[in-house]
Amino acid sequence: MSAEKRLQELGLLLPPAPEAKGLYRPVVIVGQWAFTSGHLSMDAEGRLLTGRLGADINIEAGQQAARWAGLNLLASLRQALGSLDQVRRVVKLTGFIQSTPDFQQHPAVLNGCSQLLADLFGTEAGIGVRSAIGASSLPLGAAVEVEALVEILP
Amino acid sequence: MSAEKRLQELGLLLPPAPEAKGLYRPVVIVGQWAFTSGHLSMDAEGRLLTGRLGADINIEAGQQAARWAGLNLLASLRQALGSLDQVRRVVKLTGFIQSTPDFQQHPAVLNGCSQLLADLFGTEAGIGVRSAIGASSLPLGAAVEVEALVEILP
Amino acid sequence: MSAEKRLQELGLLLPPAPEAKGLYRPVVIVGQWAFTSGHLSMDAEGRLLTGRLGADINIEAGQQAARWAGLNLLASLRQALGSLDQVRRVVKLTGFIQSTPDFQQHPAVLNGCSQLLADLFGTEAGIGVRSAIGASSLPLGAAVEVEALVEILP
Repeated sequence: MSAEKRLQELGLLLPPAPEAKGLYRPVVIVGQWAFTSGHLSMDAEGRLLTGRLGADINIEAGQQAARWAGLNLLASLRQALGSLDQVRRVVKLTGFIQSTPDFQQHPAVLNGCSQLLADLFGTEAGIGVRSAIGASSLPLGAAVEVEALVEILP
Repeated sequence: MSAEKRLQELGLLLPPAPEAKGLYRPVVIVGQWAFTSGHLSMDAEGRLLTGRLGADINIEAGQQAARWAGLNLLASLRQALGSLDQVRRVVKLTGFIQSTPDFQQHPAVLNGCSQLLADLFGTEAGIGVRSAIGASSLPLGAAVEVEALVEILP
Repeated sequence: MSAEKRLQELGLLLPPAPEAKGLYRPVVIVGQWAFTSGHLSMDAEGRLLTGRLGADINIEAGQQAARWAGLNLLASLRQALGSLDQVRRVVKLTGFIQSTPDFQQHPAVLNGCSQLLADLFGTEAGIGVRSAIGASSLPLGAAVEVEALVEILP
């Protein structure tokens, strides 16, 4: 099933591909691999979803933030690849969660992004390896930052 | 020397391969590469080794936690590859250490995992590049989380 | 333009390649890929550039720290590859910034390293994907730690 068609079926609109906030590219393609930069939790209007898990935002808000970070990552991938149908599989997802020292539910938060990828690409292709890590701070106060390694079609 | 034989010689029993705590796979194989998810410090009975370096656990306990995280990672690799003898070399190890802001001995802690890999695969194949990073929080309060990139035999 | 010539033109002297502070290698080469370990902010005399963004060092000092971390990473790459002219492109840069919980300008700090890579390899080859992350603590109290994935010439 086409990821682009699935996107339409789900009624999902990708935000505009985010512009680089420093000296980097959103995506680099080498052979079969597409590497992405860390993408921040930002909504369709480009407003950052900020806050700290364990303090001022709850799990549900964190999951929404992770989902938005994923939507931005997908927007960058589509811009670089021409179409999300060029994705063969999501190999690796790394998620940093801005949180208090005693926060423990990083995996539940990051599921907000993983579920999006599973919905779009299917469980087989959308779910790869993953690391969820707590960060004491993230760029611009973002609640979540995600980066991915994706295998693409030839 | 076979890593599986070496495991026996060292009298090491791998814990059961850990189950995913979210939407991810423990290992993904693409061509010559095996990627692993972040693996937490968890003992053979599945009890998490929690705590914070610089506060409630010392370097030795941290090294034990890093070693257990490595044993779980090896259990996942064996499950995915059929045998640890399929490992050609450990290319990269990333270790996140739950610690206080003033903690500085992350490399010594992560050596607890690296030494295990060196013992098992030999220094040539078991020791690759590495990053040791302090995390203000980790999933489930784990003291250590490690992920690896491994080159495998054809 | 040769990166080694560019280094001379810029009047840049690389520090001595840093020695491993634990059980790891500074660089591992597999096929077209060179992976580096996390490299700390350390000056030409091997003195660590320590401190915490948002508390005891400012953005400019952080950028200098990021630049020194990059110079050490380049020294390791040159030692492993024989010459920086073997670098085809910098694919990925990951930077951890030791900072307070309310710090937000990680991208500006990490630009200190990215600018160095752009100056040396050109924007096309020197700038890849990037993640900038806040760390509550880093090895030896370093202000910045960077790791890279580099594509090399055959």
